[in-house]
Amino acid sequence: MKARGPTLRSLGEFGLLKRLRARTPRLPPDVLLGLGDDASIVQPSPGLAQVATVDVLVEGKDFRWDWCPPEAVGRKGVTVSLSDVGAMGAVPKYALVALGLPRAMPLHRVDRLYRGIWDAAEAARVAVVGGDISEAPCLILGITVIGEGEADRLVRRSRTKAGETIWVTGPLGRAAAGLGALKAGYRIGRSSLKNRRGRKIVPKTRKAIREMIRALLYPVARYREGRILAERELATAMIDLSDGLASDLNRLAEESNVGARIFAERIPLDLPTKQVAELLGLDPLKLAIGGGEDFELLFTSSAKPTTIQETLVRSGFGRPHLIGEILSAKEGLCLIGPRGKQEPIRGGFEHFR
Amino acid sequence: MKARGPTLRSLGEFGLLKRLRARTPRLPPDVLLGLGDDASIVQPSPGLAQVATVDVLVEGKDFRWDWCPPEAVGRKGVTVSLSDVGAMGAVPKYALVALGLPRAMPLHRVDRLYRGIWDAAEAARVAVVGGDISEAPCLILGITVIGEGEADRLVRRSRTKAGETIWVTGPLGRAAAGLGALKAGYRIGRSSLKNRRGRKIVPKTRKAIREMIRALLYPVARYREGRILAERELATAMIDLSDGLASDLNRLAEESNVGARIFAERIPLDLPTKQVAELLGLDPLKLAIGGGEDFELLFTSSAKPTTIQETLVRSGFGRPHLIGEILSAKEGLCLIGPRGKQEPIRGGFEHFR
Repeated sequence: MKARGPTLRSLGEFGLLKRLRARTPRLPPDVLLGLGDDASIVQPSPGLAQVATVDVLVEGKDFRWDWCPPEAVGRKGVTVSLSDVGAMGAVPKYALVALGLPRAMPLHRVDRLYRGIWDAAEAARVAVVGGDISEAPCLILGITVIGEGEADRLVRRSRTKAGETIWVTGPLGRAAAGLGALKAGYRIGRSSLKNRRGRKIVPKTRKAIREMIRALLYPVARYREGRILAERELATAMIDLSDGLASDLNRLAEESNVGARIFAERIPLDLPTKQVAELLGLDPLKLAIGGGEDFELLFTSSAKPTTIQETLVRSGFGRPHLIGEILSAKEGLCLIGPRGKQEPIRGGFEHFR
Repeated sequence: MKARGPTLRSLGEFGLLKRLRARTPRLPPDVLLGLGDDASIVQPSPGLAQVATVDVLVEGKDFRWDWCPPEAVGRKGVTVSLSDVGAMGAVPKYALVALGLPRAMPLHRVDRLYRGIWDAAEAARVAVVGGDISEAPCLILGITVIGEGEADRLVRRSRTKAGETIWVTGPLGRAAAGLGALKAGYRIGRSSLKNRRGRKIVPKTRKAIREMIRALLYPVARYREGRILAERELATAMIDLSDGLASDLNRLAEESNVGARIFAERIPLDLPTKQVAELLGLDPLKLAIGGGEDFELLFTSSAKPTTIQETLVRSGFGRPHLIGEILSAKEGLCLIGPRGKQEPIRGGFEHFR
């Protein structure tokens, strides 16, 4: 990485901390003390339980600088933790940022990373109350988010039963299509995009590529939807789709000790996903089932389907999709294909493999 | 790093998570849900405020595998955050672990690292409620600790005034002496230690070296002392000595907008520190002022010195040391030497420089 302008080395840790502190957005009244002391002080809301989660993003594994502006990295670091809080049906409240940075990192990149963190946090009304910065061989970002909710309404992975319906909050495979496009050499912001055979792409597909890459780089956490489902007691179990439908459904089924049947035809695929998949020679259904990072919510319910749909739509969200049903554990996990063909659903991505 | 036995690659992320989950110590009743869901659920104590802090340790910067067993790394990762909670006068309650691990890391090292994390957490009655593990080029450990206390009794850095006394909870320079010994080639556990000139060391000094290296690798967080000082309203400002007396006193003075005078003769130095400093040809006073990682508390007070001393001693802790007094900001920060000679106190270690 070539440094442009001042780097961390020229500013030093204390200079960086002062700079960040001066730029920190204003804190809400339940944050009694923000950055600048040994720890921050917050006032939890009386009577509520807290949920706590941390997620780690690593340069080279979770993002690449040539794919992704620094703002997007910061924003995504917050989003992945917000998504976990949302999958519990809690309201996200505050965040702490653990950061490892290479010494030669240009300061403008640190500033833009933090801009992304603050923007995502502010949009969710989450206060960034503290953090720690160390020198590291590459950028590592670990964001802890604390949220709140009524203890008896928070939604676990472990409480669905056979006979309940299985839902997702939005279309799947978008992030995987975006990843495919990046791997094939497409980038956001290039003036002329070409496909693999060097032919010019029609403008409609160009728009689809841009949308899919954005879906990967700027994912949206569905914590508002998760909160409504929890408040109205409509979800019996919930998980966010970070590792992909196959993998995350497996985890939910394992925690609840159930099986499940998913109907391939009901898995929501939007048009740009299909367009990009076609362009890249990929199967959009495989992107939707095996691909991670869509951050839609997967939830189960015993409520009437119309109640679930109307509740979310009336609250201003997209219509959720009923994609299958919970079975007993001994029936396992299977996908019903378009011609009634059954195949087992196995797990997806995992680290270290 | 040469792998012995199974590595992370052979176990995979999910295998590792299952293994950790099975080994996690039992959780206290205020933790409603531990590992294994999108987030953990905890029940905050009614009426109390929370403090939140995160600290990052990086392989090669904060520790070296040839200096330090994996248990010590895990233990220290928890200790540095406990120390921050203690410096607020709060009771530490729960922790989240963000971990970056190289793929080739042998599994026994991961197990021992976690053993250290759990041991330190259990000793402090802190529940490890969650975490995230990613692949990274070196080990990076970021531990978030949440604590509790009465909002009006938590101790900030910013509230001391001219005329108050300055205290430390224990002897300084021990960790710096240990670091000096490691840098000079001494190690814990070697059958025969030699000094720099190749002469055999007398057993008394050998014991001192071992003690100093242990002070660096197995620091003790003074959160119990910090809590008592806060409960009894004896501390007006407090900070833990992580970067060294000079650096941390500067920060406290800056936050409170005051100056300070420290008497060199009153800075507590214990015999092993002096012995190791002599062996290494170092000035023990410089180790005490400039060296970091002692994790003693530095606090200010307007109470009677005997009250402060008796409170801590009667609670079973070591006698604290009155080392100086707070001045007005315009008087700056100075050290009064043995012959009344004054010199300014400047900051110490910082990252990226």
